Amino acid sequence: MLKATIDAETFRESIDAVAALVTECRLHVDETGIRTCAVDTANVAMVSLELGKDAFETYEAAPEELGIDIAKMKSILGMMSKGDLLSLNLAEGSHKLELSFGSYQYSVTLLDVNTIRKDPSPPAIELPGKVDLQGSALSSAIKAADVISDKIALGIDEKTETFFMMAEGDTDHIRLELGRDQLIDIQPAEARSLFSLDYLKDMGKVMARAEKVRAEIGVDHPVRFLFDLAEGSGHIQYLLAPRIEAE
Amino acid sequence: MLKATIDAETFRESIDAVAALVTECRLHVDETGIRTCAVDTANVAMVSLELGKDAFETYEAAPEELGIDIAKMKSILGMMSKGDLLSLNLAEGSHKLELSFGSYQYSVTLLDVNTIRKDPSPPAIELPGKVDLQGSALSSAIKAADVISDKIALGIDEKTETFFMMAEGDTDHIRLELGRDQLIDIQPAEARSLFSLDYLKDMGKVMARAEKVRAEIGVDHPVRFLFDLAEGSGHIQYLLAPRIEAE
Amino acid sequence: MLKATIDAETFRESIDAVAALVTECRLHVDETGIRTCAVDTANVAMVSLELGKDAFETYEAAPEELGIDIAKMKSILGMMSKGDLLSLNLAEGSHKLELSFGSYQYSVTLLDVNTIRKDPSPPAIELPGKVDLQGSALSSAIKAADVISDKIALGIDEKTETFFMMAEGDTDHIRLELGRDQLIDIQPAEARSLFSLDYLKDMGKVMARAEKVRAEIGVDHPVRFLFDLAEGSGHIQYLLAPRIEAE
Repeated sequence: MLKATIDAETFRESIDAVAALVTECRLHVDETGIRTCAVDTANVAMVSLELGKDAFETYEAAPEELGIDIAKMKSILGMMSKGDLLSLNLAEGSHKLELSFGSYQYSVTLLDVNTIRKDPSPPAIELPGKVDLQGSALSSAIKAADVISDKIALGIDEKTETFFMMAEGDTDHIRLELGRDQLIDIQPAEARSLFSLDYLKDMGKVMARAEKVRAEIGVDHPVRFLFDLAEGSGHIQYLLAPRIEAE
Repeated sequence: MLKATIDAETFRESIDAVAALVTECRLHVDETGIRTCAVDTANVAMVSLELGKDAFETYEAAPEELGIDIAKMKSILGMMSKGDLLSLNLAEGSHKLELSFGSYQYSVTLLDVNTIRKDPSPPAIELPGKVDLQGSALSSAIKAADVISDKIALGIDEKTETFFMMAEGDTDHIRLELGRDQLIDIQPAEARSLFSLDYLKDMGKVMARAEKVRAEIGVDHPVRFLFDLAEGSGHIQYLLAPRIEAE
Repeated sequence: MLKATIDAETFRESIDAVAALVTECRLHVDETGIRTCAVDTANVAMVSLELGKDAFETYEAAPEELGIDIAKMKSILGMMSKGDLLSLNLAEGSHKLELSFGSYQYSVTLLDVNTIRKDPSPPAIELPGKVDLQGSALSSAIKAADVISDKIALGIDEKTETFFMMAEGDTDHIRLELGRDQLIDIQPAEARSLFSLDYLKDMGKVMARAEKVRAEIGVDHPVRFLFDLAEGSGHIQYLLAPRIEAE
């Protein structure tokens, strides 16, 4: 059972964040809020979303697992206007989720959860380098790298306390360096890993809207991005596996 | 013979309204103004346009029938700026229509009217349900339905005095309800008919600009949309045949 | 050797002007500034660019010839923001040009100049008709002509001191006339030549930004467009061969 209202923009950003990686997911609902965790089909990237009950205007729920067609949900939410209030309703035992906003009422049949991959267990990796920066700065760097390459290296120069990103094309390369005063915060540690821009581009579009993104990196380790929604009541986490650096 | 000047925007909206359904038409010119009526190639939708002489800044004409390449006219009018004054000139017995706006002079050879389908006779159908609403609200509903289906049902709930639209996808459906206080006016009557979104989408883009659109509907009957141009001196009417509702 | 800083927007406009015709060029650098001159692969159009040292914030250089991949440079410069200051650095004897802007550092390996076509000798043609007009007016005329044809005639009516452009489609034609009071200046002379819109469209996009463009035309002769960058410290010239008018 779910009976809740939420700012349309907040819910749309949540769904967009998940839609960057997967087309369907298991949404877990209980008294404390909703959450999901999903891995892309190639097992390279993971997204986890938590929307606490405080992210909602009103919230009432009993534990349940919902099969959501994320791609379809995204296109429907695209019709909502900024400022709309969205009502979510799922009756006890029902397989139809009702969404209402403005004068619209939208009803979607839930997917059978058994046809959707189980939630992955988020790996417990400690990543020593931590950087807090504006989402828009991160997104710009990803776009810049994409002009000349399909890979990007993210790292930290421990001595200069600088976060760097680097991309190499056939005859050119680009480097972005952000020192302590251009970052919100930095916890320096030796770090440098290479990532596929294919995944980062989609994540970058979502993160561009975040005021603050935390990036956690290591040496040839995954990168973890963390950012908030709804003034801290919602949390999104991306985890992306590294690529092996060619000799 | 035609010698007239008109606000470029008004003329562009008129041509756009016709261009939503056909690529060429017969334009009837006389002392009282210009008008056309045309049916799409599949005989599913009809558009009729009337621009009275009051819609023009200056107007002088003798009765004549002009063969207009609507698609080409639309692309030419796209070059005009808002606020431009457009001059239309067709000399007695000439086959070249001259359009001037700004420092531009555009001359187009008229089509042979005999190669263009004759004007249809607008069917005299009485449609009992009548709804006046903002063009933008109608256009939004059409866009929303298009996300999940290729058909839309338009109807009136007589008891609640509510105008509704409904679309069904494979696993979901969407419903929009507009009560008396969200409408400009409503004349309730039992009404519900199904329409192809293919046609409605093109009409919707044109109607989105209208402050008020009247929609007339019945039970498994065509829908008629009526709206004005040029502060009431111009009238546009769309008529769209219903689709049979599948069991 | 080159060590210079320049307003990012000025440099981007310079590269865009060259990119409208060629994908690579020889850039000549010396104490007085940088310049290039290049012809498109079909030998129909020529661009020449001069950026005097006054166009730069700081400038220091020793004579050198640089092989530039214009297309790649254009995509990189697209990442810069308005107001950015761009640093150009080429060490003595190096083949890597360093560009820095904001927190980005971009390094590009220069092309071997011997693989790039030699600079053409700009032909010394005297074109009698001269017209000064807003770049945006010229660009609009080119766009309007493009709607109905693939060729445009540019000319001057000596008696009425009018600059005209004309394009003919199969059944229609368009004519734009700009008299002395709609132009910045005109030096009338009999002139009328026909040009391919393919080339003019790309040039038009660049010239649209110029406050003043001088167009020099003759009878069945090339057209020359001249305009400035960086408050007169930069000069761009396009030369386009005429097409033969079909009978």
